[in-house]
This record gives sequence, C-alpha cells and structure tokens, in this order.
Amino acid sequence: MSQIQNPINRKAALVIIGNEILSGRTQDINTSWIAENLQRKGIKLFEVRIVPDIEVCIVQAVNELRATVDYLFTTGGIGPTHDDITAASIAKAFGVELERNAEAMDMLEKNYGSEKVTPARAKMAMIPAGAALIVNPVSGAPGFIIGNVHVMAGIPRIMQAMLENVLPLLESGKPFLSNTISCGLRESVLAQPLGELQQRYPAVEMGSYPHYRGGNFGVNLVLRSVDEEVLKTATQELVNIIRSLDGEPQALGLQAPLESW
Amino acid sequence: MSQIQNPINRKAALVIIGNEILSGRTQDINTSWIAENLQRKGIKLFEVRIVPDIEVCIVQAVNELRATVDYLFTTGGIGPTHDDITAASIAKAFGVELERNAEAMDMLEKNYGSEKVTPARAKMAMIPAGAALIVNPVSGAPGFIIGNVHVMAGIPRIMQAMLENVLPLLESGKPFLSNTISCGLRESVLAQPLGELQQRYPAVEMGSYPHYRGGNFGVNLVLRSVDEEVLKTATQELVNIIRSLDGEPQALGLQAPLESW
Repeated sequence: MSQIQNPINRKAALVIIGNEILSGRTQDINTSWIAENLQRKGIKLFEVRIVPDIEVCIVQAVNELRATVDYLFTTGGIGPTHDDITAASIAKAFGVELERNAEAMDMLEKNYGSEKVTPARAKMAMIPAGAALIVNPVSGAPGFIIGNVHVMAGIPRIMQAMLENVLPLLESGKPFLSNTISCGLRESVLAQPLGELQQRYPAVEMGSYPHYRGGNFGVNLVLRSVDEEVLKTATQELVNIIRSLDGEPQALGLQAPLESW
Repeated sequence: MSQIQNPINRKAALVIIGNEILSGRTQDINTSWIAENLQRKGIKLFEVRIVPDIEVCIVQAVNELRATVDYLFTTGGIGPTHDDITAASIAKAFGVELERNAEAMDMLEKNYGSEKVTPARAKMAMIPAGAALIVNPVSGAPGFIIGNVHVMAGIPRIMQAMLENVLPLLESGKPFLSNTISCGLRESVLAQPLGELQQRYPAVEMGSYPHYRGGNFGVNLVLRSVDEEVLKTATQELVNIIRSLDGEPQALGLQAPLESW
C-alpha cells in the first residue's frame, strides 16, 4: 500500500518489551488495540519493535523511535520483578535519574494498604525524574509519560485502562476513514487495474490482502483516506472493476458508504 | 528476564512488512509461529520489527537487522499487487538487480498454467539476483533466500509451508528447554526471592508473567535453560519458594520434569 503522508496526521510508534512475545509463549494483542485507538484520533502507528528485556536494546529502540514520531508508546516490564527493567531503561534513554516518586507511592499504598508496600512493590514507584504518571485503575502501579514517550503495562487489561487515560492528552489528527471490499477473485487478476486505480487516486491508500480459506483464494481490498468524498468515488470505481472481472464485490465495512451499491 | 547469551545458540530477527498489521486490521500470528519453530532448533528470536509498505523503511530495517543476527526472516509483500514491494526493497538493501527468475517463472506456470501467467503474476517471478528460491506449495509464487535473509509470504498458511522448507537449511543451536510454573500469588510477593533465585542460577533465564483474570491476580513463572539438570534444580527451588509463601505451584508445562513434585 502506498503511504500517503498527510501532514494533518500524526505518527506514532510502539516498543513492546517482552521476552515472552519473542519466545512465542505469549501472543501480542496490544498492537492492534493501540493501533485502532490511535487511528480513531487520526494518529497513525508507523512502526512497532518487539525487543527483549535487555537494557541496551530498550534504550536503543526508544531513542531511535522517539526521535522520528510524534508519540512513542511502550508496553511491558513495569512490574516488581527482576525482569521488569523498563523504568530504569527509560531513565537511561533520557539521561535522567530513576527516583522514588511520592505520588506513585501514594497510589501503591492506596492499592495495597500502606503496611503492605513491600520493597518489591516500592520498586514500582521508581520513576524517571520529571515524568508524569499514568493512573492504573486495575492494579495500582502507574505508568508514566516522559517527553513524547508513554510507558504502559504489558497486561492487556491494564494497558487498555492506561491508554484510555492517555488518549485525551494526545493531539488529534484528521481521522482516516476506511472502506473494505471483499471478493473471490485471485489477487493477481486484480493487480493491474488496482495499480492503475491507485495511480489515479494518490490521496487514497489502497491495500490488497489476499486470503486462502478452505482451498479458496480471495482478497480483501482496503481503501483509506482522510477525504470522504474521494474515498467514496474510488470505492465505487473499485466495485465497478470487480464486476467487470466477473467478481462479486462484498462490503466488509464502509466508513464512507456508497449511495448505491 | 535476564538474557543468557549462550554462544551455542543462534540469533534471529523478523521484519513484518505490512500496513495491515500497523493499522490493527490484521492480528499478526506469524511471530509466535516463527519463534516457536526456531526455538526448537535452538535459534532465538531476538527482535521483531513491524514496518509499513514503504521501501526506505524496509531497506533500513533489513540492513540494520541482518548485520546483527545469524538469520533474518521477513513476512509479507511478495504478491502481485502494487503494494507488494518486498522483493524490490530487498534487492535495494543488498544493492543487486531485481531480475526475472527462470525457476520462479516455471513455478508460476506450473501453478497457473503457462498461458495464465499474466504480467501481474509474472511480477512474482522478479527476484533479487543471486537469491535461492523457497518453494511455495500452496500458491506457487516462491519466497527466496539472499545472504542470511529469508523472505516469506505474509499469509500464515503459506508462510508456514515456506518455513517448513527453510528450517532444515538452518544451522541448529542447542535447544532451550523451558519449565513453566503457575501460582495464584501476586507477582510482588514473589519478586524478591525470585530475583535472588535468578542471581544463584545465571544459566537459567527466569521470566515472571503476571495475569489478571476474573478479578484474580496470578503469575506464570517461566524458567529456560539449555542445561536440563540445572533447569530441574532451579525449578525445584522455585516450587519450594512458592510453597514457603503459602502458594500452590502448578506445572503448566515442564520440558525438564521434576522427579518428585
């Protein structure tokens, strides 16, 4: 898919910190959640890196990516155990101290009860100097924001709650609308006219996603644009192309619906 | 989790080429499949990058990662449509020509019938000069290997079939064995003794993965090592630690089973 870099739209990246994803033990489901929520705000997820729980790897990924996007997010590694090194790594990436954050201690005390904030738990109040906290309504231990980097938990439910607190703080872009058309034609039959359609509509991103189910090939065609009218016109042309090839177009989701089908 | 870099073990990385993953439309399931299959050969997946269908992004990710690992894999973008730019991008990354590959044309003709290899389909026979093909038993269009880079399809069934053809070509490391113990203790209760256990067993990677289900916290503890005996001993110690904290250890999968439980 050609990428239209609309200046209205903002770019984000995500660093997933977690050996458990790299070992295949855990299936990442945070990427799609974050991507979809950002998209609704007109912020485009531009790159994701999954890195191991090694400080130098985290520092490098964070520093490379935060320089190239409007917003960087991280998930994972903010718990109490020896393998939770995200806060320390972020402090290193920014060249600031990791310090006990009084507000974070308050949050932990409210969650556990003050007498139960053991040294292991108090580790979760160690936050890079100058960071603002992200409230964790599920398990107490906060995430934090430093510069354009938003540090969140890896457990999906906790990450989702944190992201909900972060989203209102982000500056929105103009949201992309997408139309998805499916048909049973093979991708290679559509390739040439689709490529020509893309040429004629540079303001529409056109992606072709083939699938293979039960011995049958088919393809989902995704058209995306910030311009609703242009998106409708391009979608209508695509529908006509599919029909001219004796395919049967099906609407899988139209955020810019066609007047007639 | 501390990373034990066993010199016997080999390192791999994966570049996922696909706007559809970055938009949240498609859930990546290739990472875990590749990770697990490599692991069985003692090859560790060390980093994953998900990049958009933009040549400069693909070239940069491929060139950075292929220099740091034994084996690099890519998925996605090898089809017939305008957004399939992986082969051209890899050719650019290696500074070689993209050329019509006679063997690949044969494969396409066998799959489609020679009269049906349209120009769009023939695009899938454009392969970087000097690359070796990876057979695609599902849909004809091959992947390829150039240097230490293994270029595969994005559709999971096709990727899996290609990987099966690639695996025998890779030099094995000594496989990691893993033992997973679950318990209902909160992670913060275990953090200190687990950290101390990790200190005593530097040859065992210890990961702590909390979860939160139905209002209850719990944790999965994953111990991994290439040394079966050491892994058993460390696992037994962990079981004793959990019991000493009034937890109930459960075996979720022991590749190095304990003699007594």
